[in-house]
Amino acid sequence: MQLPQQVKIVEVGPRDGLQNESASVPAEIKLELIQKLEQAGLSVIEAGSFVSPKWVPQMASSAEVYQSIEQKPGVSYPMLVPNLRGLESALAVGVEEIAIFAAASESFTRKNINCSIDESITRYGDVMEQARQHNLRVRGYVSCVLGCPYEGAIAVERVAEVAQRLYEMGCYEISLGDTVGVGTPVQAQQMIDAVAERVPMERLAAHFHDTYGQALANLFAVLQRGVSVIDSSVSGLGGCPYAKGASGNVATEDVLYMLNGMGIETGVDMSKLVEAGRFISDFLQRQPASKVARALIAAD
Amino acid sequence: MQLPQQVKIVEVGPRDGLQNESASVPAEIKLELIQKLEQAGLSVIEAGSFVSPKWVPQMASSAEVYQSIEQKPGVSYPMLVPNLRGLESALAVGVEEIAIFAAASESFTRKNINCSIDESITRYGDVMEQARQHNLRVRGYVSCVLGCPYEGAIAVERVAEVAQRLYEMGCYEISLGDTVGVGTPVQAQQMIDAVAERVPMERLAAHFHDTYGQALANLFAVLQRGVSVIDSSVSGLGGCPYAKGASGNVATEDVLYMLNGMGIETGVDMSKLVEAGRFISDFLQRQPASKVARALIAAD
Repeated sequence: MQLPQQVKIVEVGPRDGLQNESASVPAEIKLELIQKLEQAGLSVIEAGSFVSPKWVPQMASSAEVYQSIEQKPGVSYPMLVPNLRGLESALAVGVEEIAIFAAASESFTRKNINCSIDESITRYGDVMEQARQHNLRVRGYVSCVLGCPYEGAIAVERVAEVAQRLYEMGCYEISLGDTVGVGTPVQAQQMIDAVAERVPMERLAAHFHDTYGQALANLFAVLQRGVSVIDSSVSGLGGCPYAKGASGNVATEDVLYMLNGMGIETGVDMSKLVEAGRFISDFLQRQPASKVARALIAAD
Repeated sequence: MQLPQQVKIVEVGPRDGLQNESASVPAEIKLELIQKLEQAGLSVIEAGSFVSPKWVPQMASSAEVYQSIEQKPGVSYPMLVPNLRGLESALAVGVEEIAIFAAASESFTRKNINCSIDESITRYGDVMEQARQHNLRVRGYVSCVLGCPYEGAIAVERVAEVAQRLYEMGCYEISLGDTVGVGTPVQAQQMIDAVAERVPMERLAAHFHDTYGQALANLFAVLQRGVSVIDSSVSGLGGCPYAKGASGNVATEDVLYMLNGMGIETGVDMSKLVEAGRFISDFLQRQPASKVARALIAAD
């Protein structure tokens, strides 16, 4: 067993997390959250998305938020972009890194954006071309990698194909999302092994949800395979859009605790991270959805 | 990596779980819970303990509960016994299996029972002798195997010594408890490896708490080392006595989900298990502390 010595944590709370919260979070609160996450030492903070405010009102202030960030050297602030129009909005405020998304499930893609997986990726051709012209870094998401809320099991080959296409289009990193949190450790390893045959391991990120409590076990499983990039959401922000009241994104605090305990370096400070999680949880008037945060706060 | 094909789940909810709940649960509710757990297919159900009701009022009805169980063939119902007096109470109601407990931490032992680890084990000599005479099976607990609430880190050698002593005294199985839930996967593997040098792997059980969300990752880690017995508590009953509001025993539902996902046989039925957890959670008027239970109930 060979675990990585260092792991890069990609903090997705301000975007993937808050996008799935029912409460509307004002721009100044998002900015304070992003600042606290920077102070905790996170080097990648997904800060917002340029999607239609009609569909995702939680992200309506993304341009304002992005422009107001006092960017820290060495920290990147990717913004999700669904199409050319989103990219134009991103370019207008000087975004340097974007994220695009695809799914490994035909049913999910059809339900979400009413096209096939193939079409959904082809449509990004223009976005990638523009991104290249403007020297933007592009991160690619693949969702439903360990199961789909509509069709259930997903073949690892399918995940590998979609990941490969995004990588060959120019995405520098492919984030593999267990969108419904249904995966278990052996399955997670099999999926990673299949993808790593087509995309270099160091270009893969694990983006796991904790809906069935499996996220850390699955992360430990794929760390053993060589994955060294982990997406997580401070305080477990986001919940699960497919089961109200259930957990969604794995909490950054819980991931950090496991990595710290295994002597894996991240550059992230636990107490400052817990403070960031407490700040946003207080704003949302609820307990942090992180067991580490709860235990540390209870022991305080 | 070699995972076991079968795992025995030792359900500790009715004893270890309910003992740490503030609500007093009447004997008839405990009996109904035990019955539902049997129906779910659990083959070992820790049913109560013969401790002083002055110290643990939650277990005061243990004799009544034990006598009223309609025992199912093939199912065992161990009862915790702290001393000879407890053993006499157990024998009086015909108990066939008992559990005794020690800790791998001097400070914990001192605070808990005001003696050294060595004395605490020596004191069980009479209990073990009597147990032998009455053909009782004895299970041994070691607590604080991955850390102590009072002294912090615990040397794996110390855990191994205590486990070995209990095994050599006649315990047929040694349950290794991460009482404060502070362990992480590599540490869990190192601890198991150290203990397995002195006690056969097939005699070891992992009894992990989820206070810092690490339990399933730690369980996956030790399953990879050959552990094939797991203690857990339906619905995560019990909470953490060291941090009010934090999680305690790992939830049986979450363990079962992970094992099912890896094709490991347990003989336990998920929907009946969730039903048992729902029953006791409803009685306690709270949500199940199991992510699997919450997700399944939310998706219902």
